[in-house]
This record gives sequence, C-alpha cells and structure tokens, in this order.
Amino acid sequence: MSLLAELTSLAQQARQASRIVAQLSSEKKNAALAAMAEGILRNQKAILAANIKDVQAANEEHKSAAFIDRLTLDAPRLAKMIEDLRAVISLPDPVGDSIKAWERPNGLRINKVRVALGVIAIIYESRPNVTSDCAGLCLKSGNAVILRGGKESLHSNTAIHRVLQEALGSCGLPVAGISLVQTTDREAISVLLRQRDYIDLVIPRGGEALIRLVVEQSQIPVIKHYKGICHTYVDESADLAMANEVAFNAKVQRPSTCNAMECLLVHQAVAQRFLSPLLKRLQNAGVEIRGCSRTQALGAHVVPATDEDYATEYLDLKLSVKVVDSLDEALAHIARFGTKHSEAIITADERQAERFLREVDAACVFHNASTRFTDGYEFGLGAEIGVSTDKLHARGPMGLEELTTYKYVVTGNGQLRT
Amino acid sequence: MSLLAELTSLAQQARQASRIVAQLSSEKKNAALAAMAEGILRNQKAILAANIKDVQAANEEHKSAAFIDRLTLDAPRLAKMIEDLRAVISLPDPVGDSIKAWERPNGLRINKVRVALGVIAIIYESRPNVTSDCAGLCLKSGNAVILRGGKESLHSNTAIHRVLQEALGSCGLPVAGISLVQTTDREAISVLLRQRDYIDLVIPRGGEALIRLVVEQSQIPVIKHYKGICHTYVDESADLAMANEVAFNAKVQRPSTCNAMECLLVHQAVAQRFLSPLLKRLQNAGVEIRGCSRTQALGAHVVPATDEDYATEYLDLKLSVKVVDSLDEALAHIARFGTKHSEAIITADERQAERFLREVDAACVFHNASTRFTDGYEFGLGAEIGVSTDKLHARGPMGLEELTTYKYVVTGNGQLRT
Repeated sequence: MSLLAELTSLAQQARQASRIVAQLSSEKKNAALAAMAEGILRNQKAILAANIKDVQAANEEHKSAAFIDRLTLDAPRLAKMIEDLRAVISLPDPVGDSIKAWERPNGLRINKVRVALGVIAIIYESRPNVTSDCAGLCLKSGNAVILRGGKESLHSNTAIHRVLQEALGSCGLPVAGISLVQTTDREAISVLLRQRDYIDLVIPRGGEALIRLVVEQSQIPVIKHYKGICHTYVDESADLAMANEVAFNAKVQRPSTCNAMECLLVHQAVAQRFLSPLLKRLQNAGVEIRGCSRTQALGAHVVPATDEDYATEYLDLKLSVKVVDSLDEALAHIARFGTKHSEAIITADERQAERFLREVDAACVFHNASTRFTDGYEFGLGAEIGVSTDKLHARGPMGLEELTTYKYVVTGNGQLRT
Repeated sequence: MSLLAELTSLAQQARQASRIVAQLSSEKKNAALAAMAEGILRNQKAILAANIKDVQAANEEHKSAAFIDRLTLDAPRLAKMIEDLRAVISLPDPVGDSIKAWERPNGLRINKVRVALGVIAIIYESRPNVTSDCAGLCLKSGNAVILRGGKESLHSNTAIHRVLQEALGSCGLPVAGISLVQTTDREAISVLLRQRDYIDLVIPRGGEALIRLVVEQSQIPVIKHYKGICHTYVDESADLAMANEVAFNAKVQRPSTCNAMECLLVHQAVAQRFLSPLLKRLQNAGVEIRGCSRTQALGAHVVPATDEDYATEYLDLKLSVKVVDSLDEALAHIARFGTKHSEAIITADERQAERFLREVDAACVFHNASTRFTDGYEFGLGAEIGVSTDKLHARGPMGLEELTTYKYVVTGNGQLRT
C-alpha cells in the first residue's frame, strides 16, 4: 500500500471513530481512561523493554545526553504517566457544556454548546510520555487522536499505543480513536498534513524546525506551541527586593521550560542598585550573563549581548540583560524580540503596569509575578496539552476546553425567515 | 519593486498600524467609522464613476448578468454601505471585555481579556461593498485589515479605499490600518498568504475555487466561509403543516444564500402525505425538483437525483429530495453530503430531536425552524463578517467578538514558582 493510501485510510478510520468518541458519556470516557492507566501498569515490562531498544539505538547514534534523557522511560516515569491518565478522570468533561444561551424576539432559543473538535493530530519528538498524555486529554475532550512521534521513540510509542488501544477495545470503544502513525517514512508528516477532510487540528510539539515544517506544509489548521522568549521588565518604581526574587525565580527555578525568563530588562534609574546584587546572585547559581554595555559596567564576567542573543530561547542557565531608558524602550524591545508567550513587569506604579499589560501582545502578561506561572496546572485548568503561542482558537495554556469547539443548537416552533 | 517586496512592505505597515488600532478607545473607533460613512456619502460621484469603469469592462468581457449585478453600485447600494458602517458604531466594542476572571490559591488573579487579533486579510471577489463592510468590522474589533478584492472591481475598490483611508487620516489614525492590495498580479494572493509574520488571520470570501486556493497556499490561519449544503429532515412525527412552511421558507425565501436548504429528507412514513402537496407548491414557486425514486413516484416532473446533485450547492431554485427509512439514514446522508453549515429537523418527538441536534456535526443545528436563520443579525450578533464552516476559533455566524482573541492578564504581589 502506498504511503498516501495508508495514511488516508488511517485518517478515515480516525474520523469514523471520532463520531462515536464525540458522543460518549463522561462515564464511558472515564472507564476507558482507567483501563488505559491499568493497561500501562500491567504492561510495564513490555513497555520498558521496548524503550530499551530505542535508548540503545539512540546511544549507538551518539545522541546527546539530553536527548537520551527525554527518550528514557523508567518505573517512576511510567508511574507518572499512569498518574497523569488517572488525573484526567477527575477533570470535568467539557463536552455538552452550555457556553451561552439566549432567546431571540421571534422566540428562537439559541444555545452555544461545547462539542468535540473531531480528529486531532499530534506531531511530537522523542518523549514517549506524550503518547499517553495526549491520548488521555483528547479522549476526555471527545476527540479521536492521531499520534506521530519521533522515529527514535517508535518502539516505545508502539508498545504504549498497543496498550492504549487494547484498553479502548476492552471498553467497547473503537480502537481507531487512538491511532499511531507507525511508518518512519519522513514523508509521512507531509502526507498527513494534507488530510484536511479527516483531520480537524494539528498540534506540533517540538523544536523550531518541526514547527516550521508543519506550518509550511499543513492544509489543516495548526496551533503552534512555539518558543518562549520571555522578558521581565523591572520598572524604576519596582519593589527591588520583590523584583530580585521574581527575576531569580523566572530564570533559575526551571530554566529548560518555555516560560522561563530569557531576557531581563531594567530601567536605568534602578539599574545599578538592582543589577549589581542580582547579577552576582544569578552567577552564583551558575547563570551566564550576556548584557548590553551598561549591564557590562555593572557586573563582572558579563559577555556582550548581540541581537542574536536577544532573539535566542536559551532554555538554559543563560540570560540576556538590557538596561533601558524607559517603559517605551522596554515595550519596543519586547515587540521586536518577544514570541507572544509570557511577559512580566515588576512595578509599584499601577499606571505603568496597566500600560504594559494592555500594550504587550502576548498570551500571558504578568504584573509582579514570575513568567513561570504560564502553565495549565498553575492556571487551574487541571491539565495542559501545551502552551499556544498562536492567537486563533486558543492562546496560552491549553486544557480540555481548548480541545473543543462549539455548535449552535437552535430550537423553535416553526419560525420562518421573512 | 518586486511583488514580494511590495506586499511584504504593505503587510509590515499593516502590522505597525495594528498596534495602534488595537489600543484605540471605542470613541476614536466610532469617530473614524462616522468619518468613513461621511466620506462615502461625500464621494458618491467619484465612487460611482469608478464603478462604471469596472462594469463597462465586465460587460466587454461578457461576464454573466449575475456577476455584473454583484459588481454594480448605485445610489441605494451606496446608501446601504453607509448605513452598515453607521450600524457598526452602535455595536458594543468587544475589546477589553473580561471573558472570565478568577483567583488562584496563591493569590494570583487571572483575567481572560478580549483583545484584537492584529492584522486580518480578507480575500474576496467582485462585490465592492465588502471593502467598506469588512473595513468597518475589522476597525471596530481593533484590527488592521488588508483587503484583496477581485481584479474586476479594482476601480471601485480603489475609490472606496481612498475614501476610507482619508477618513482614518482625518481622525489621526494610521492609514495603513485599512490597506488594499492594488496589484492585479494573480501571484499576489500566494505571496500575501506567506506573510505569516505580519498577518494573523485570512478570511476568504468567495466561491469554492478561491477558498481551495487560499487553503492550499496559506501559511497563515484561515477561517473558511465554505459552501452550505443545508438539509431539512422531516421526521415521521413532524407537524406536517409546520414542516411544509419551514421547508418552503428554507428553499424559496432567498435561494441564493448559503443557509438556504439544498436537500430535503423525508421519513417514508409521511412521504406521501407530506411530499405530494409540498412538491406542487415548490414547483408552482419555480423550484426544480431532483428526487430519489420514491420522490419521483410522488410528484410530476421530478428529475432523478444523482450523488452529484446531493453534493451540489445549487444557490438557486433547485432542490434535491430524498425519502429515507429512518433518522439513522437521514443522519448518514447528512454526514456524507453536509458541509457542516446548517441542518434542521422537523419533529414533534423530543427524543428524535435531541439525537439529531447532538449527533449532527454542523455549525448550526435547528429543531422546528428554517436553516435560513443562520445569520449574524438573526442570531443577534449585530453584524456578520460571514459564516464559518470551520471548527477552529469561530463556527457559524461571525460577529465582532469572533474577530478578537484573548490574553491572560495575571496580577500578583511577588508570587514565585516552587
């Protein structure tokens, strides 16, 4: 069978399954989630054995330590996958919620009701836990899912996927509700991205190159989970002790995440008082500082920052620092280098804060808090399939509601258009 | 200047203007809308003179009467354009609305606030009134707009656009907030559709070929306003007098619209009683009937219906009719031939209605009402930029709110992630 025929058939079957999954009661979906968790528990050995094959191959190909860490499964990581699936059971089911209801003068009653999107394709890289995480969230939100993980994790994904499908089958649900693209053909992604009759949404989860590939080739709507070059701007009226703690937290608490601060902007009026101690504290925590000329004058071992630095998502213990003359300069810098993810201002001046919060174009804007709070769990969504840096449909942390759409249910008693 | 350089520059200027437009107060936007309406009023002669050039060229190219009708402006149509712009003034401004606000246990306050999308590109065909309609709706929702109308209406669009830009300028607003692609180069659309750094959303308004072109080439999110193959299913328990009125209204009241009924499905138990009189009534109103074999047996002059008929949006006084054995058969027919636009069931049986409303995958589902009600004004949205047949971001009638996105405004007092 050709790749096109194979993937068209897979997508068609997912579409058919989606019609059933969309109508499932919360009880049936929760039973399937419990069976999925139970299946992973019972099949730990087989999953770990499959994962060892992937890890060995990655070692033979001399992949980086970080890559192999992302790829590797062990008992605690499997336990986390099981825990995450079980956590989805307790989340409220968004399907069927009334978003808004009203009556028209002619008596028509209009109800805007949340419904499943249909078929969601997730294109991801090497983390095998994405397989079960995304399957669980898509199922709970009433969607069929097509998973396409990195070829390096194919053994692991195939083993996990088999268990998930068995769980669906044991609950009498269509197994095509959770589908996995098993070919490692690189063309598979572009063929998949043309299945617009059968797939409603594509979510790429991975690095810049993967996201670019998906955006350029997709004929299906894409929600990007792009990079986060997040700024913290310390205003002249900031509580500097608070600013020190928040900036340190935003950089150091978990630098590998997309909501970590990558660039610190400081008003010149407080630069000396604020930066001198903070730069030392950051450097003591292992942070490499790349600064503008005024920053270099305020600390030792500051590497000169280039525009390329300002445009880089380090995901590491590195930080760009720039002293600015005004809020306007900070806003202009963020407009130029920000990625519309998360941006923060530290200030005691409400008017400055208001301007920042209003004028910065980003999914999440913070006043006197760490950008690290951009997160589905921290926002109280109960789960997160990612953080959208797009503006259409969903922005910022995406939970179950963001995996749904709506329809208008209109009831009348014979109304006619005149 | 190359086409790429020209359109990149246009899109960049629209992006810059969008930052200002997004922050405008309702008062400033309303003043600009009033100036736009006033400008069209004062420049009627110039606009009509430009339109005559377009109409003459279309006549010389032997365009169809319907095409020339859509292209033609006259005093009443200009008055309607002015009236529509003025109507937008009185609509509530969605920008800045709080969609939802909550507080987290750590004291962080999260406010989900409606904001402008940014830059919206509208790609349309020959109706010059789209130029002012879309400019008005985009401005009121805080967006910059890039307009690309059909080459046949370029003189008209250029004249209207000049007036709209003058109005913006006279109010101190950036004229690039309403931009028009003036080149007739066919490549312009595909070049525009790659400006993903500067354009946030593309809305194609036109026929199937235009929409297909846009979807296949766009690297920017698209919301399609695709065709409406709308069904009415008359159930065995329907009030047949009501069903007769609703079906007649859905087909005949304005057959050229996307929400008009194109296919009538009738339960076999009531087919004879219901269809015999209705087919005559429709034929007396000039409707051509294309029916299944059972329909043919119930009326004179019924043309045999093919699958191609069921898949056709007639936009005309033509109707496909099919007698079905059950609700299931009706649902399967709609799943196969429907375009996810508007679908109706006529029944007195609440359980049948519930199943139909829940299982049919369409933007708008109706119980005992005409599909013709799928309309921004009829829904009470106050305006309509079109009817989305997509599922992402906006579904069904799109008003001002659907031209916005949101951001999370998070305020704290020094919260740190632990």
